[in-house]
Amino acid sequence: MDTAPLTISQYLIRRLQEIGVSHVFGVPGDYVLDFLDEVVASPLHWVGNCNELNAGYATDGYARMKGVGAAVVTYGVGGLSILNAVAGAYAERVSMIVISGAPPTTRRQSGALVHHLVSDYRLQYDIFRKVTADAGILDDPATAPELIDRVLGRCLAERLPVYLELPADMARRVCAPPAQAYTVPVPRSDPESLSECVEEAVALLGKADHPMVLVGGEVSRLRLGSKTLALVERLELPFATMLSSKSVLPELHPQFIGLYQGNWSRPLVSKQVEASDCLLSFGAWMTDLDTGMFSTRLVPRNLIAAIGGHVQIRSHYYHNVQLADFVQALAAAAEPRSYTASHPVETYHIPEAYSPVDNQPLTAARFYERIDGFLDDQMVLLAEPGDSFCAAADFHVEEAENFIVQPFYASIGFCTPAALGVSLARPDKRAVVLTGDGAFQMTAQEVSTLLRNNCPAIILLVNNDGYLVERVLHDDGSYNDLQPWAYYRLPEVFGKNAVCMKVATEGELERALSVAEKETKRLVFIDVQIGKLDASAGLARLGAAFRATQEAHASARQANVRTERLTLR
Amino acid sequence: MDTAPLTISQYLIRRLQEIGVSHVFGVPGDYVLDFLDEVVASPLHWVGNCNELNAGYATDGYARMKGVGAAVVTYGVGGLSILNAVAGAYAERVSMIVISGAPPTTRRQSGALVHHLVSDYRLQYDIFRKVTADAGILDDPATAPELIDRVLGRCLAERLPVYLELPADMARRVCAPPAQAYTVPVPRSDPESLSECVEEAVALLGKADHPMVLVGGEVSRLRLGSKTLALVERLELPFATMLSSKSVLPELHPQFIGLYQGNWSRPLVSKQVEASDCLLSFGAWMTDLDTGMFSTRLVPRNLIAAIGGHVQIRSHYYHNVQLADFVQALAAAAEPRSYTASHPVETYHIPEAYSPVDNQPLTAARFYERIDGFLDDQMVLLAEPGDSFCAAADFHVEEAENFIVQPFYASIGFCTPAALGVSLARPDKRAVVLTGDGAFQMTAQEVSTLLRNNCPAIILLVNNDGYLVERVLHDDGSYNDLQPWAYYRLPEVFGKNAVCMKVATEGELERALSVAEKETKRLVFIDVQIGKLDASAGLARLGAAFRATQEAHASARQANVRTERLTLR
Repeated sequence: MDTAPLTISQYLIRRLQEIGVSHVFGVPGDYVLDFLDEVVASPLHWVGNCNELNAGYATDGYARMKGVGAAVVTYGVGGLSILNAVAGAYAERVSMIVISGAPPTTRRQSGALVHHLVSDYRLQYDIFRKVTADAGILDDPATAPELIDRVLGRCLAERLPVYLELPADMARRVCAPPAQAYTVPVPRSDPESLSECVEEAVALLGKADHPMVLVGGEVSRLRLGSKTLALVERLELPFATMLSSKSVLPELHPQFIGLYQGNWSRPLVSKQVEASDCLLSFGAWMTDLDTGMFSTRLVPRNLIAAIGGHVQIRSHYYHNVQLADFVQALAAAAEPRSYTASHPVETYHIPEAYSPVDNQPLTAARFYERIDGFLDDQMVLLAEPGDSFCAAADFHVEEAENFIVQPFYASIGFCTPAALGVSLARPDKRAVVLTGDGAFQMTAQEVSTLLRNNCPAIILLVNNDGYLVERVLHDDGSYNDLQPWAYYRLPEVFGKNAVCMKVATEGELERALSVAEKETKRLVFIDVQIGKLDASAGLARLGAAFRATQEAHASARQANVRTERLTLR
Repeated sequence: MDTAPLTISQYLIRRLQEIGVSHVFGVPGDYVLDFLDEVVASPLHWVGNCNELNAGYATDGYARMKGVGAAVVTYGVGGLSILNAVAGAYAERVSMIVISGAPPTTRRQSGALVHHLVSDYRLQYDIFRKVTADAGILDDPATAPELIDRVLGRCLAERLPVYLELPADMARRVCAPPAQAYTVPVPRSDPESLSECVEEAVALLGKADHPMVLVGGEVSRLRLGSKTLALVERLELPFATMLSSKSVLPELHPQFIGLYQGNWSRPLVSKQVEASDCLLSFGAWMTDLDTGMFSTRLVPRNLIAAIGGHVQIRSHYYHNVQLADFVQALAAAAEPRSYTASHPVETYHIPEAYSPVDNQPLTAARFYERIDGFLDDQMVLLAEPGDSFCAAADFHVEEAENFIVQPFYASIGFCTPAALGVSLARPDKRAVVLTGDGAFQMTAQEVSTLLRNNCPAIILLVNNDGYLVERVLHDDGSYNDLQPWAYYRLPEVFGKNAVCMKVATEGELERALSVAEKETKRLVFIDVQIGKLDASAGLARLGAAFRATQEAHASARQANVRTERLTLR
C-alpha cells in the first residue's frame, strides 16, 4: 500500500475506485469545489448533469449495471434536489453513494446563516438518515477514514444508498491513509440456521411433486442470477420471474415458465406457480405492481420464502440466513430429480414473426410487438414506469442485466437519465429507453448529457398526448393533458450528434429502426405517434385491477356518505 | 354560509379560495386524482407543470406576489421531488401550501408495499415536518376541517410553508362544512411589551443625530412595505434596503440611500449606515449574501433590531412584539424631526443614459447597464441566484413587488418556473427572467408551461458557457463547463407562441429589446452571448470576499497540514 498522507477527499476517491466506481455524477456548487478539484485530478471520470435529480437517476442506472454508483452534490439546494432519486434507490435496494458538500465546520459551529441553509445545519443529514443504510459527517480528519470505510461497507453489504457529508474546510484536510486495500464486507449466515434450514428445504423438495422456483427482485439486486440459474439447472426446476426480476434468468431457457404477477400473469403462468406444492420463493418483493395489485394466490404451507436475510417455512423463521448462501447450499444439498422432465411445464410463448404493413397507423400493440423483436442481446432496455414497463413485462429478454425498471418506487422520468448511467457503466451495450411523453418532460434535459458523453442511446418516446396511466386508471381529467412538444427536434437543440425521427405508421417505424441499427455511434431519438388512449395489454390489465380496487372504495364511500349525512343532520 | 355537506377535498378547496389562492400548481399522480377531479370542477385554475420541483418554484413565485400559493403532488415520487422548493420557501419565509396525495388509509394500516412508498408510511410526513411550520394527515373526516384550518392559519400567520397529506380514500369523504368564513389569524403583540419598547425607541430616536432605517427581508415577506414607507416619510428618516428587501421601498425616493451589503455596498452607503447613531433595523436577515459575507460593521449599542416577533435594544429583548405593530406604533409615537433635511444624505446614484454602439460585442457590464434601463414599472424582474442577482442588486427598481430574488436559499433554476407563478398571479405585470445557462438547464422545460399558459414573459439568458459563479469564486475547473445548447431554438420546440433571438452585440441587443417591447402578448426569449469569464461588478465583489475567506481557510489548512504530517510520521 501507498502510505503517503492523503486528504480526506483523496482517501474517499481512492476507496471509490477500489470498490469499482469509475464515474461520478453530479452538479458542482461552491461547498463541494475543493472535493471536485480532487475528483477531476483523479482517475475518476466526472460526469456533470443538468440538475441533481437527474444526476441521482443516472447514478442509480450506473449502480444497477456496475453494482455501485456515486453522486456528488452541493449542500441544501443540491442535497434536497437529489433526494427523490436516493429514496428510489432505498426502496429498490440500489447501492448509491451520495457525497454532499457542506458549509465549513467553522460556520456550522457559529450557526451562521449561510446560503443554501434551510434552518439548522443537521437538517440534511437527518433527512438522509431516513433514506439510507448509513450516513456520516466527515468533520474530523482523525475519524474520517474509519467513517468512510464503515459507510461504504454498509452501502455494499446491504445494497442500499448511503450519505457522506463533507464540510468545505475538511476536503483538503490530511488523514491517515488506508492500512490495507478495501475489503467489501460480506453478510454472513449463521451456520447452524443455514444447515438446519437447508435440511428442511431439501426434505420438503424431496416430497414435492411440483416444486418450482419464484425469482424475485432481491435476486436481481444482490446479483444472484448465476447462482440461481445454477440451482434451477442442477435440480431441473421450472422457474418464474417477476417484474422486478425480469430477465435475471434467461427468458428463452427451457425451464422458464413466464412472468408471475398474480392475476395479471398469463393464465398458464399463474396456474402453475399457484399450484406448486413446494414453491421456493427467492427474494420476492410482494409489492402491488409485482403481485398484480395483491392478487397472488400463493398457499403459505407450500412456500419456502427466502428474503431479507431470513427464510420462512410455514410459520417458522430461520434468521441470519443470507439468500446467496441459501441458494448455493440448497443447490449443493438437494438431489437432482429432473422435475421439469417428470412434470412437463408449458414453456414461454415465442412470439410470431412481425411483418410491418407500410401505411398502417401504429397502434400500441403493434409498436410494442415490434420493439420486442427489435431488442437484441447487446441492448439494455430501460422501461419507464407507466405504459412502457407494463408493455415491456411481456417482452422477451434473454440476457441478465438487459432490462432495467423501477418496479416498486416507479418514479416517472427515471429512464432517460438512468440511460446515461447505463451507457457509461457498460459502453459495450446500447441503452434503449422506452418512455412516454409525460415522463420524458420531467427530465428531458438529460438527453443533452447523453449527447455530451457521446452515448449512442436509442430513445423511443411514445407520444400519446398526456399521462396515459392516469387516463387508464381513473376517469380521465384535463390534468392529464400536456403541452405538445416537437419532441423529435429537441435533441438537435441539445447537441449536434443526434439522429431524430418522427414516426406514425408501421413503415415509418421500420425505416427508423433500420436507421437506429446502422447509426451505432450516435444517439437516435424516435418520436412515436400513438393514439391518446391506446394502451398496452399490460396497462389494460393494470387498469382493470386498479378500477376494481377503486370500485371497492367507492361502495365503501357511498355507504359512508349516507351514514355521515345522517350524522351531520 | 352554505351549510351543505362537503367532501374533505371540497372543504380544502373552499378554504384555499377564501385565503386568496386562485391557481394551483402541480403534477398529477394516481393517489391524488380524486382531489384533482374536485380542483378542476372548482373555480380554482389547475396549472400542470413538467415536474414537481418546477411546480414548487412556480408556487413560490406565485406566493411572493399574492401572499400565498398552493401545490398539489402525488406521494413519494412527487412529495420528495418538490421538497427542495419547499425548503427554499421555509428558508425565505414564503407561504406555500403543499397538498400531497397518499395511499389509501386501508393500505397504510396494513403496511402494504404499494408503489411510490419508500419504506414506511410516515416518512414523507416526518420529512415535511422539518421544512414546514405545520403539517397534518387528513385521515379522519371528523377532524379534517379543524386540521385544515389550523394548518392554513399557521401558513399565513408565520409566512412559512405547510404540508397536508390526503390519503386517496379520504378525498371524497364527507366532513362538516365551515361554520364561518375563514379568518386569517394575525399574530398579536403583547401590549405592555409593545408600548414599553416603543417608548424606549422613541427616546433613543429623540437623542440621535443620525438615525436611519435599515429595511430587511422580513419587511418584504410580511408585506410591510407601505407601513414602513409611511414611517420613514412621517419621520423623514433616511433608509437603506438589503438584497432580500430590494425595492420594497421605492429606490428613487429622496430619502433612499442605497443597498446595504456590508463591504460590498457602495462606500457612501456603508459609511452612512454604519455611522448611524440609532439604526432602526427592521427584519434584517443577517445572511452571508445580505451582509457581504458577514462584513457588516454595525455597532450593537446603536441598534434597535426588530425581527421574528422580538425587538432587541442593546442587550435586552422585548418578546412578542410583532414587526407590523412596532413599525406602526413607532410611526405614530415618534416626533417628526426632518432628520433627512438636517443631516442631508447623498441619495442614490442615477445612472447615465445608455447609448448603444452597434457592432460592439456585448460585455456583462454593458448588458446589465442596458437591462437596468429597459425595466419599467410594469415589469417584475426575477433575478437568478448567481451573476444575475449580483448584477441586479445594482439595478434601480421603483415599485415594490417588481423584484423577485432568492437571496438566502439561492437555488439556481428557481427563476424560470417562478416566472410562471408571477405571470399567473399578476397578469397585469410582465415577468422578466434574468438567468444564466447553468441555472436555465436545471429547469428549462418549464418554458413550455409558460407557453402553454400564454404568459408573455421575457427570458434573458446570459449564455457564458458554464457555471460562472463557481468559476469566479474558486479556481476554475472543468466541472464548470456545460453542454452548449442552441438555447434560442428551445422555446420553439416547446410551443409555437414564442419569439426567439440570439444577440452578441450592443446593436443586436437593442433590436431584440425593441421586439420584446412590441411583442407584449408573446413569450420573448433572448440568448445573450457574453464572454466566459465576464462577470458583473457585483459578482466580482462577491468573488473577492469569497476568496478572502478561502485564503483564511487555506492558511489555517497549511498550518494544519504541517502539524498533521508530523503526527502521521
